[in-house]
This record gives sequence, structure tokens and C-alpha cells, in this order.
Amino acid sequence: MEAPPDRSTTPGRFITFEGGEGAGKSTQVRHLAAKLTAAGVATLATREPGGSAGAEEIRELLVHGAAARWDATAETLLHFAARRDHLVKTVWPALQRGTWVLCDRFADSTRAYQGAGQGGDPAFIEQLYGAVVGDFAPDLTLVLDLPVEVGLARAAARRDGGARYEGMGQAFHQRLREGFLEIARRAPDRCRVIDATASEEAVAAAVWSTVAERLELAP
Amino acid sequence: MEAPPDRSTTPGRFITFEGGEGAGKSTQVRHLAAKLTAAGVATLATREPGGSAGAEEIRELLVHGAAARWDATAETLLHFAARRDHLVKTVWPALQRGTWVLCDRFADSTRAYQGAGQGGDPAFIEQLYGAVVGDFAPDLTLVLDLPVEVGLARAAARRDGGARYEGMGQAFHQRLREGFLEIARRAPDRCRVIDATASEEAVAAAVWSTVAERLELAP
Repeated sequence: MEAPPDRSTTPGRFITFEGGEGAGKSTQVRHLAAKLTAAGVATLATREPGGSAGAEEIRELLVHGAAARWDATAETLLHFAARRDHLVKTVWPALQRGTWVLCDRFADSTRAYQGAGQGGDPAFIEQLYGAVVGDFAPDLTLVLDLPVEVGLARAAARRDGGARYEGMGQAFHQRLREGFLEIARRAPDRCRVIDATASEEAVAAAVWSTVAERLELAP
Repeated sequence: MEAPPDRSTTPGRFITFEGGEGAGKSTQVRHLAAKLTAAGVATLATREPGGSAGAEEIRELLVHGAAARWDATAETLLHFAARRDHLVKTVWPALQRGTWVLCDRFADSTRAYQGAGQGGDPAFIEQLYGAVVGDFAPDLTLVLDLPVEVGLARAAARRDGGARYEGMGQAFHQRLREGFLEIARRAPDRCRVIDATASEEAVAAAVWSTVAERLELAP
């Protein structure tokens, strides 16, 4: 579907997880999906870049290879192409069905990585957001925050391939962290920063209480 | 290089070839490149989508697969991502060196295929052009025009793979042809329509005389 469903008439919610490398986003998506499912909520866990067949192919061009293989403009366009495919093929149809969608990264990652991190033009990113995503936005964004060196050490230990962004250097990752925190400061109704240095279980509990509180889901 | 060279101080010219499937664009690029080279002009023949390592990878996502695999918005973004990489890595550096660049397809193909053909928003395409390409434009665009059925028959006989666009149907290809002619009508200083039903040699002669006349190259 090429436009988002009317959110006032569909029960599904769109929750995004943001943060730098090694923050534990995909782990926390799994924890929340399990808790929502146990609570009887139809839930879909997905990720960006990716989450649809075409977007996963675009992902391959983004997560591998040399750090400088794309300039910030080309990279931003690739992320929005993947995002468009993901929304049209996966996210909007799921919300239309009433499913809750939990997404490991969304547009805030483009703002932080290609904007704050790579120095891309923030106005260009917002212009693309308007044209490609429209006025659709997450109901809730959880920013998992932790010091850069802790996150990179965790990501390196994980060794799951696709380490292109990890190779972009300490200063890049510091700008990234500050970028995410700035996004959260500017959109306090949508975003909540969660301390990701805590244990996996403690972070999962913080995520759950935030979701329950913000989205009026009985805990 | 992330911006075009100052065209007033570089001798290279940027010539694009446009038209539907089977119009003979790549053949005519080769003819013109040979003539320019024989005339002592440093010449680079390239193509879109493609023309740089990254853009050729994006091309693979565009020319293969089902006709409906991308919606017009995602497809336009992929074309502009490939275009950006091609400009930054190939076209602008060549022009900076003084090389003439001959390109098999450029932004007019996005206007015709994703705009006129697939029904994408023309304002979105122009907005992207401004943000991604800026005020850079071809010095000369040669629109190779021929009836849809002739072009599709030629393309089918060619059998060179990557037939996704060929599979988009007769009505699509008719809108495409009209789209290219409308672009040429609106930009008469930049574009010249060439009858591509003539023989390969006659078309090559028409291309050469147009280039010689428009770009003040002694024939």
C-alpha cells in the first residue's frame, strides 16, 4: 500500500528502537515482541535498512564495503529507497491489519548517521522524509544510549558481519550519540532515552514500563 | 568530487542520449565516441543507471526482476542514488580533467520512466534533481525517437537481459515516448530530437552534425 493507514481507526502502534552500534536494539526488540505477544498483542519485529525483500537487497549495499563507498547524499537516498519499500510492503500493511510493528532503526538513524555523523544536509533529509514518509511517524521511539566505547566493544565482540558503520571512527560515533540525544530532546513526546549500560533484563524492564505508560497498555 | 567542476573553465562537455527501449542509444554513443576520439577529443562513454562501481550495483536492483518490484517513489530514489554516485565518482572528475562525457541515459529517463511512465510525482523528481544534481545539466541531449512497436521489437531481438522495463507494457512505453518528446519541446536549447527509424549510419551522421553545430566542434 502506497500510503499509511488511518491511524485513528487502526489499533496497531509503530515503535522504533534507535541508538549507536552495540546498544542492544535488536535484543530489546525481541524482548518487547515476546512480552507484547504474551499479552495477546499481534506483533511484527522488523528492521531498517531492510524488512522487505527489496529493502534487504539495498541493505547489502549499505552495511558492507569501505566506509567511504557512498557520499552522504547517495547514502541518504539509498536509505530512503529502502525505507519506502519497507513501509509500502511491510510496515503499512501490518499496521492496517492491526499489528504492532517494532522496528530496529528508522528515520532517526538517517538523521543521526547521515546527518550528524556523515555531515549530510539536515534539510535534505527532512525534505526526503516529507516526500517519502509523509506525516507518518513512530508512536514511540526508544533511544538506547550508552558511551561510544562500550557500544563499539560490544559490537566488535558480536562479530555478525556488516561492520561498515562500525569502521567509521570514534569521532563519527561520538557525533552519532550526540545526534540521537539531540533528536530525543527535540521530540520529547515521541522519544524516550533509555540507559543501555544497564543489564539486558533491566533495559527490557525499562522499555516495557515506557511502552505500557506511553501507549496506555496495561502492564 | 562532491560538486561539479566550473564549466566555464573546463573544456569537457556532457552529452546525454535519451529514448525508449531499442532506440539505439548505446550504439550511437559508441559511434559518437569513435568520431570524437578520431577528432582528438578525450572522450568517456558511460551509462545510467550505472557508470561507477556503486551505481552498477544499484543498476542490478533496477533492471532485473518483476515490473512492480518497486513503487515509483522507491524507484526514483534508487535512480537518483545511482546518479549521485555516477556523478561524484565518474562524470564530474572526467569533466574536471577536460574529458567529454557521453552518457547513455540521464535524468530525462527518470522524468520519462518514473514520471510520465510510472506516474511518479514530477515535482518530487525535480526536487530530487535540485538536491542531488544541483544546477548541473547536459550541454546537449539527443532524444532518439521511434515508434514504440519498432523499439520493443528491436529490444526483444537484442536479448541482452535486464528486460524489466521492456516488460512494462505497450501503454507504458507510449507514455514514455510522449514524455521524452515533451521534455524536448520544453528544453529546445538543450535537446534535439533525432529520427531513430533511419539506418544506424544515417542516425550517426545526424548525431554528429548536431554535435558539431550545437557545440561548435569543427566537423
